Amino acid sequence: MNDRAEPGGWTPGGDKGQGRALGDPDDVAAVRRANADLYEAIERGDLDLMERVWAQPDEAADIICVHPGWMPLRGRADVLRSWALIMANTTYIQFVLTEDNIGVRGDVAVLSCEENILTGAEDSNAFVATGRIAATNAFVRTESGWRLWLHHSSPIISDDEDEDVEEP
Amino acid sequence: MNDRAEPGGWTPGGDKGQGRALGDPDDVAAVRRANADLYEAIERGDLDLMERVWAQPDEAADIICVHPGWMPLRGRADVLRSWALIMANTTYIQFVLTEDNIGVRGDVAVLSCEENILTGAEDSNAFVATGRIAATNAFVRTESGWRLWLHHSSPIISDDEDEDVEEP
Repeated sequence: MNDRAEPGGWTPGGDKGQGRALGDPDDVAAVRRANADLYEAIERGDLDLMERVWAQPDEAADIICVHPGWMPLRGRADVLRSWALIMANTTYIQFVLTEDNIGVRGDVAVLSCEENILTGAEDSNAFVATGRIAATNAFVRTESGWRLWLHHSSPIISDDEDEDVEEP
Repeated sequence: MNDRAEPGGWTPGGDKGQGRALGDPDDVAAVRRANADLYEAIERGDLDLMERVWAQPDEAADIICVHPGWMPLRGRADVLRSWALIMANTTYIQFVLTEDNIGVRGDVAVLSCEENILTGAEDSNAFVATGRIAATNAFVRTESGWRLWLHHSSPIISDDEDEDVEEP
């Protein structure tokens, strides 16, 4: 990571899968917890938790959710309905988040990560790894903590992570 | 759009392709211009403009860019290099943005839109429509105007836009 040094007070992560963070450490930790709640809601199929994860209309009226391959969904009704549909059609799903990266600016935080997804095959006890998803999640600071404003996820098809990246 | 009314001062768009906006009208107009600069830079293959579109490291050190199918890119070096590669490999590209939706919160704005892309076929004068992309772009307010913090784009494969959406 030495060739990726950035100004501005980055906290580089030490462990594999632990990314970088920019912002007040308490904010960063709280955003990371809010992000964990999102994936816990999906894994547990917990729609009540999912409803708490997302901002209320007076906090971020324009909540946006893009599932892989989907058009953008906007507003709590459409977004939560989509999660209910996904939960109803998912027997088992587990996320391992890597390469997470958090930036906090005022009352907004943007977290970028890779979702490594493991799902259960429908007709067997075997597990099937369904590949990697690129996700960006934006959170807003509210009186009741950080709440999700934007979730955009898309399948990673090309992979140049081992490429030697230089200045253009 | 009557069934999609939201609280909080939304400005519903009148024309087709004109979405909704939440925030100070001057901010919304400035964000829309900054967003137009992004797509003008791509269409013109103008890397100088692209460099001005994106925030500087002291404004948003953690700039993030996800191209369709790509893993997330972070930091100006990797992000601008990717645009240089894309521009070098694109003969003609034109964007028609629809369904745009802008929300401003403090010094951060999130714009969601659909990119309807028209590209030139490599070996002919014919145009080939390459489908639709879901894009979310987040901007930060800087001393020199709104600058891009996050761009995430992904192909739209499923399409339920005509579906009757109800509360879950």
